[in-house]
Amino acid sequence: MRQVAILGIGQTKIDEHWDRSLREIGGDAALAALHDAGVEKVDALFVGNMLSSMISAQNQLGTYFSDWIGLWGQEAVKVEAACASGAAALRTGLMAVASGDIDSALVLGVEKMTDKSGHDVTAALATAADADYEVEQGVSFVGLNALIMRRYMHEYGWKHADFAPFSINAHANAMHNPFARLRQKLTVEQFEKSAMIATPINLMDASPTGDGAAAVVLVPAEKVASLNGKPRITIAGSASSTDSIAVHSRKDPLFLSAAYQSAKRAYAMAKVEPKDIDFFELHDAFSIMSALSLEACGFAERGRGICLGLDNEISPGGRLPICTRGGLKARGHPVGATGMYQVVEVVQQLRGECGPTQVENAKVGMAQNIGGSGATILTHILKTE
Amino acid sequence: MRQVAILGIGQTKIDEHWDRSLREIGGDAALAALHDAGVEKVDALFVGNMLSSMISAQNQLGTYFSDWIGLWGQEAVKVEAACASGAAALRTGLMAVASGDIDSALVLGVEKMTDKSGHDVTAALATAADADYEVEQGVSFVGLNALIMRRYMHEYGWKHADFAPFSINAHANAMHNPFARLRQKLTVEQFEKSAMIATPINLMDASPTGDGAAAVVLVPAEKVASLNGKPRITIAGSASSTDSIAVHSRKDPLFLSAAYQSAKRAYAMAKVEPKDIDFFELHDAFSIMSALSLEACGFAERGRGICLGLDNEISPGGRLPICTRGGLKARGHPVGATGMYQVVEVVQQLRGECGPTQVENAKVGMAQNIGGSGATILTHILKTE
Repeated sequence: MRQVAILGIGQTKIDEHWDRSLREIGGDAALAALHDAGVEKVDALFVGNMLSSMISAQNQLGTYFSDWIGLWGQEAVKVEAACASGAAALRTGLMAVASGDIDSALVLGVEKMTDKSGHDVTAALATAADADYEVEQGVSFVGLNALIMRRYMHEYGWKHADFAPFSINAHANAMHNPFARLRQKLTVEQFEKSAMIATPINLMDASPTGDGAAAVVLVPAEKVASLNGKPRITIAGSASSTDSIAVHSRKDPLFLSAAYQSAKRAYAMAKVEPKDIDFFELHDAFSIMSALSLEACGFAERGRGICLGLDNEISPGGRLPICTRGGLKARGHPVGATGMYQVVEVVQQLRGECGPTQVENAKVGMAQNIGGSGATILTHILKTE
Repeated sequence: MRQVAILGIGQTKIDEHWDRSLREIGGDAALAALHDAGVEKVDALFVGNMLSSMISAQNQLGTYFSDWIGLWGQEAVKVEAACASGAAALRTGLMAVASGDIDSALVLGVEKMTDKSGHDVTAALATAADADYEVEQGVSFVGLNALIMRRYMHEYGWKHADFAPFSINAHANAMHNPFARLRQKLTVEQFEKSAMIATPINLMDASPTGDGAAAVVLVPAEKVASLNGKPRITIAGSASSTDSIAVHSRKDPLFLSAAYQSAKRAYAMAKVEPKDIDFFELHDAFSIMSALSLEACGFAERGRGICLGLDNEISPGGRLPICTRGGLKARGHPVGATGMYQVVEVVQQLRGECGPTQVENAKVGMAQNIGGSGATILTHILKTE
C-alpha cells in the first residue's frame, strides 16, 4: 500500500457547548483542518461518531457534514466502533487513500453529548457493551470498568492511591492545552478524596465526557515534498483488532488482547519496537485502562503498568510520556471524537508545537483508541523525519 | 488499486423474524457467505447497519458480529450511511482489500427492524433526513418522497398508474426468489386500489421494511484462478457521491445528482457505458426513485425514466432488467442490509443462478444504493468473464 501523510489538523475545545450544535462543532474542526492543510476540497470525508442517532436524532453524518462544509458531490461516510469510532474513521480514510482510488481525505471525529440528560447519555454509552448479556444485567459502562479495576487490585495487590499518578499527569499536561476541558492541577489529596462513582472507580479515575471534534487531512505521502517548513508526518503503522464484546467472555479480563494484537501489527508495519516509541497517547477513559494498555503494548510486565506512573516515567520528560495534552482524563472524552484528538495531538508533538509539555526530539508517536471495555482497539504510529 | 473479486455470498430471508435476534440474523448471512466462499476466516469484517443503536440498544456491530461468528482478534468496524449503509460497507471493505493492507474481508449488511413499534421505527428512519431542517417540521421519510413524486407528476404530466409497472415487475420477480419478503403477484388493479400512505405514494409504491442480512467475501482478484467451476466475479466499478442532506437545498429535487456522479465514476472505473449494463439492481424504496435513478444513470431522458416500465423494458427479458430478484419493493428493504442484498443478487445473476428471472448472458451488472432522499448514493458495477 502507498504511504499516507497527514497534511493538516483541526480541533475544537472540549466543553459543554450549549450554544453550539453537532453541525457547528464538527464543521469547525473540519474547516480548521482544511485550512491548516491549505486545501479547500478533498475527495472524501470519513466521520467517526458513536452517539448522534441517539442524542441528536441524526444519522448519515458523512453526508450531513460534507453538506455543511460545502463538499457536495464528494464521497462521505460515517464509521462507528463505539469509543474507538475516531481511530476507526482514520483507518478507513487511510485505506481509501492508500488504495489509490482517492487522492485526499478529510477524517473527522465528532461527538455532541450534552443535548440529552445524563441518564440518556449513560444509556446511549451502554450500547458499546453487549446489550443482551451485559447491559440487560443492569451494569453500566463505568460498572464494567470498576469490575476490571477491582480484579486488577486484587490480583496484583495495588491500592487505589497507586493509580493517582495517571490522573495527576493528565491534569498537569492539560493545563497547557487550550483545547482541554479540565485545565486545573490535580493533587494526590484531591484524587483520594474524590467522590466514588462505582467502587473502586472514583470521579478522578474517570474521564469527563463533553462536546468536541477533531480532524485531519490525509494525502499520499509522495505528494508532500515539503510542507511550508512543517515536517512531513506519515502514518507509518495502523492496525485494528477485536476481542469478545462482553468482558465475561474473555479468558483473561486483565489482558487487553486487542491492544496487544493491534500494537503488534502496527509495530511491524512501522518497523519499530516499543523502545522506539517517543510518546504514547493512550486511552485513559478510566485509570485502570492506562495500566492495562501499557502492559498489553509491551511497555510493562503484567501487573506492573502502574509502576510507570509511580516511577514518574510518564511525564513529558519521562521515559514514556503519555497523555501529553491531557489524555481522556483531562483533555476530555467526547467519545467518537477521542481517537481523532489523540492523532491530532501526536501531530502537534511531532511538529514541536506543545510548549511546556513538548516531548524533546519527538520523532515517533503512538495513539491507541479503545471501543467498549477493550472490545475494539486501534493503534496508529506516526513518524516524522 | 488492485482488483478485488467476490468469492462467496450469503443471505437470509427478509421477514418479520420474531424468533430471531439481530445477532442471529447477521450471523446466519455471514456464515453462509464464508461457507459459500469455502473459507473459515477472513482478515476483517465490515458491517453496514443503520438502526441497531436505536432499535436494539446495540452499537459497535463490527466487533459484536466478529465475536459471534468467531473472528476474535480480527479487525472489525461498522459503517453507516442511512439506507446506503450496505453499499458503504462494501466500498469500505473493497478499499481495504484494494489497498493491500488486508487480504480478505467479509462484508455484512444487517438490519433488525421489528423489535420496536412502528412509531419508533418511523422516528428511527427519520434520522436519515435533516433533523434540524426537515424532521423538525414534522415530515416523515415517506412524506419527503411523496413531495418529490408529486412534483415529478406535476412537472412531466404522468399519472399515478404510470408508476405501476415498477411495482408489478418487482413482485413478479420476487415470486421466484426464496429470500424475498413479498412473493405474490401484483396486478394493476391491486396497485391502483391500494391504501394511500402519503399522497401520491400508496402502499404499493412503497417498499416493505423487515429483518434481514446479506453478506459477501472479498479477496484480491489475482488470488482467484478458478472457483470450482463458478465464474470469477470482480468489482469493476465502485463510487460514492453525496448531495445536500435536505431535499429543499437542492437546485433540482427531481435530479439525483449523487446517482449521476457515482454512476459516472463507476462507469469510468469499469470502462463501460450505460448500454453495456446487462441489468440494474436499483434502489426502488419508492416507485418514484426507480424513475429518478434510471434518468440520473443515463438510461432515460429527464422525465422519461417511467417509460422503461411502460414500454416493458425492465422485465428479465427486456432491454434493461431491473430488480430481478424483487427489488426493495418485493424482496424487501431491511434498510442497512439492502445494499448488500443488491450486490448478492448481482452475483447470483452473473453466476446464472436466478432460474425464471435469469437475465440471459449476463456479464455486467450494476447495483445502486441510496441513503436518505438521494443524499448518499453508491454505485457498484460487477463483471464476470
